[in-house]
Amino acid sequence: MAIWPDEDSQSKRLYERGLKVYPGGITRLVPWLEPFPVYTKIGKGAYVTDVDGTSRLDLLNNFASLIHGHANPAIIEAVSKQLVLGTAYTNPTEVEIELAELLCDRIDTAENVRFSNSGSEAVMSAIKAARAYTGRPAIVKVEGGYHGSYDYAEVSLDTPKEQFTTPPKSVGYAAGVPDRLLEDVYVIPFNDPETAASVIRAHRDRIGAILLDAAPSYLGFTPVSSEFAASLRDLATEIGAVFILDEVISFRLDHGGAQKKFGVKPDLTVLGKIIGGGFPVGALVGSKEVMQVFDHRVGRPLVPWSGTFSANPMTMTAGKVTLELLTPELVAHINMLGDQVRAGLTRAFVSSGFPGQVTGVGSMFKIITHQRPVYDYRSQRHSPAESAAMMELQRMLVLKGFHVSGAGMGFLSTAMVAQDIDNFCAATEECLRQLPHPESGK
Amino acid sequence: MAIWPDEDSQSKRLYERGLKVYPGGITRLVPWLEPFPVYTKIGKGAYVTDVDGTSRLDLLNNFASLIHGHANPAIIEAVSKQLVLGTAYTNPTEVEIELAELLCDRIDTAENVRFSNSGSEAVMSAIKAARAYTGRPAIVKVEGGYHGSYDYAEVSLDTPKEQFTTPPKSVGYAAGVPDRLLEDVYVIPFNDPETAASVIRAHRDRIGAILLDAAPSYLGFTPVSSEFAASLRDLATEIGAVFILDEVISFRLDHGGAQKKFGVKPDLTVLGKIIGGGFPVGALVGSKEVMQVFDHRVGRPLVPWSGTFSANPMTMTAGKVTLELLTPELVAHINMLGDQVRAGLTRAFVSSGFPGQVTGVGSMFKIITHQRPVYDYRSQRHSPAESAAMMELQRMLVLKGFHVSGAGMGFLSTAMVAQDIDNFCAATEECLRQLPHPESGK
Ligand SMILES: Cc1ncc(COP(=O)(O)O)c(C=O)c1O
Ligand SMILES: Cc1ncc(COP(=O)(O)O)c(C=O)c1O
Repeated sequence: MAIWPDEDSQSKRLYERGLKVYPGGITRLVPWLEPFPVYTKIGKGAYVTDVDGTSRLDLLNNFASLIHGHANPAIIEAVSKQLVLGTAYTNPTEVEIELAELLCDRIDTAENVRFSNSGSEAVMSAIKAARAYTGRPAIVKVEGGYHGSYDYAEVSLDTPKEQFTTPPKSVGYAAGVPDRLLEDVYVIPFNDPETAASVIRAHRDRIGAILLDAAPSYLGFTPVSSEFAASLRDLATEIGAVFILDEVISFRLDHGGAQKKFGVKPDLTVLGKIIGGGFPVGALVGSKEVMQVFDHRVGRPLVPWSGTFSANPMTMTAGKVTLELLTPELVAHINMLGDQVRAGLTRAFVSSGFPGQVTGVGSMFKIITHQRPVYDYRSQRHSPAESAAMMELQRMLVLKGFHVSGAGMGFLSTAMVAQDIDNFCAATEECLRQLPHPESGK
Repeated sequence: MAIWPDEDSQSKRLYERGLKVYPGGITRLVPWLEPFPVYTKIGKGAYVTDVDGTSRLDLLNNFASLIHGHANPAIIEAVSKQLVLGTAYTNPTEVEIELAELLCDRIDTAENVRFSNSGSEAVMSAIKAARAYTGRPAIVKVEGGYHGSYDYAEVSLDTPKEQFTTPPKSVGYAAGVPDRLLEDVYVIPFNDPETAASVIRAHRDRIGAILLDAAPSYLGFTPVSSEFAASLRDLATEIGAVFILDEVISFRLDHGGAQKKFGVKPDLTVLGKIIGGGFPVGALVGSKEVMQVFDHRVGRPLVPWSGTFSANPMTMTAGKVTLELLTPELVAHINMLGDQVRAGLTRAFVSSGFPGQVTGVGSMFKIITHQRPVYDYRSQRHSPAESAAMMELQRMLVLKGFHVSGAGMGFLSTAMVAQDIDNFCAATEECLRQLPHPESGK
């Protein structure tokens, strides 16, 4: 029987159809794998089975969005009941209130909520809210911080080395991004309170928002330092800007979210991924004071915000059950599995002699195919050869039955057990023994 | 038994909970109704039943997104099968190819596809694609055209009378929108080829995209004239810009979409709403030539575009079944029901003596509480008294068992029958007899 990436595999057949209707054959970049993606047929718990019948441990979980793995029975049951009653209404529902109540209960700074269909939409609305609240156009963000596809939030996501300056300049991400847009974004290095203070104070009258991820994925999930978190909070207060924390991924770190774990005190928090229980979602939560920009009772809201599918009852139902299942004990459990994976991969690097490391926190990890210390965007950057080594490692792991991302990221789910982690670490060790060492360097 | 809007109704009880967690008590603006929204419990076919047990004919269908009404059995069946296999994977699936193939089959200008989670996201990506393809920052849009929440596309959506100029200037929508952003948007009046030509030629080197809705909702669904459609096509070609057609709502008008119905020839088309079968969706389709900006095979794509839940198999499955069910005959059928509703409401205005009119095309209609000719943004505008009359009419219709929007819009579904339309027109006539006439004027 054919398996990926055989020429006569079902994945290959689908990819050839995909090439006719999608640019490059795919509609999302994330699943790309040379020579063509693995096409999924079934997800169950911690495993996905592809169209050729091969099962693999899924360390991606739709890029960190399935905290309970695939096809969780309690979620299926609740969602099935909603499905026969309709999937989307114009009018509101009880369950949209229940999920909002859950978020307000768990997150210290969440007094009010607004739902969207994606993290990207919620980031966009957070920035719009900050501009409306402050009357100022510009935002500050961390170099290399990923916050979805709103182009203001994409600035300096992958600044090439040739364009490194101090402080970092605004570099557009998508080709053709307007120069005027770049002028409304200021970029700061991660965990560097001094540079942050000087950049922010220099443009204090123009800055409406400071946007932070407390453990940015592109930066190896390096946790925010308490100094940096405190200084951004103080600077936001000092200049009268809105402090926005992006917890789209990192909410999973603690029952009360990343802000609880790291002691961050944002005005607004962006959520997504796991709070939708496997359905499209985003949310903005924060203080009543700032969130009132969405309030229609004053007449026309300062920021009118609709969205056809926002808060649809399927997403709300799945999200509610997901959070109810996600007890503090379970969060602690997957964070422990995260420690296990980092310890196991560290041993794999040592015993294989491959020059790499693993970073991450809680249930998130990142395999890094170099040994330089990782503390911000520039330090985590891989040379082309190092990136290629990671992608080769990903490919080898797929052949051994494990899905991680091409950038080496993985996200655990409550469907996993310690044995899964051991198997993954053992397989990685075998791969690392065979993987050619990239020339170290640039 | 209590019914909406009784003080002891279940809707009131939910609204009070909503007030604690949402700014203004709601998470979407659309369902707002004085003194509080109707909360939905069940949707079935053409009807929704609220939390107090009252059933109403749903002429909103989640704002035009449910072409087959609620809980269509074929959609439920297909989606139930997918649900137990998982709702979202990192890797691609066969069904995402099937839906893309269906779109390419139906839409003449669709060679390539890319999915998103909302119409707003797809509009944003269309604009980013156009900028990348042309290297130019600015867009042109029609005054009063609604294209979702990306702020470039929101410009001049509700320009107040005091700010009317010729040609129209760029007026921000959300408070605090950056001045620099407004400088990258040029606004033209609808169906006015001469002004369009002069605005577009004046800024030809800066314009990367021309964005059009062929039957804009805020403009009473006034259809694009063939002259205007042809002139925007010619101007885009002349200056080398990308012509983007927003069919998020108007795709429903024809088996081949609004472009087929009105003979528009866009480079890119934005879709959403009905193509997701009741699940969150957006899509961008267009020529291979322009869509190649998303292609990763060239190395880094010009426009890297991910999206955690884009093309998730629940949306894809529901969308596929929806389009398979939506035959040309069924499209013709609901368009005929649309003619029936417009004829019936026109009679209702005449026989009641209320000074109003109904506009629209195909399965979309808009009740207008004034009698001035409607042909663009400025001509459709309602005075405050006229708007208030429409909202009062909406309220009266809710009490009689019918949901239309506060702006008077309605969207038919294939779950409706001629009797539903007759009942609605008869009820509207009764309401119009009781509705105080707004003072005509500003
Ligand atoms: C930190 C962060 N913010 C925002 C987003 C955007 O979310 P979405 O993909 O739902 O648009 C992501 C997605 O990966 C993310 O990781
Ligand atoms: C013409 C048009 N474009 C875009 C959108 C935005 O779509 P969504 O609400 O899915 O973001 C809408 C929504 O009503 C629309 O009517």
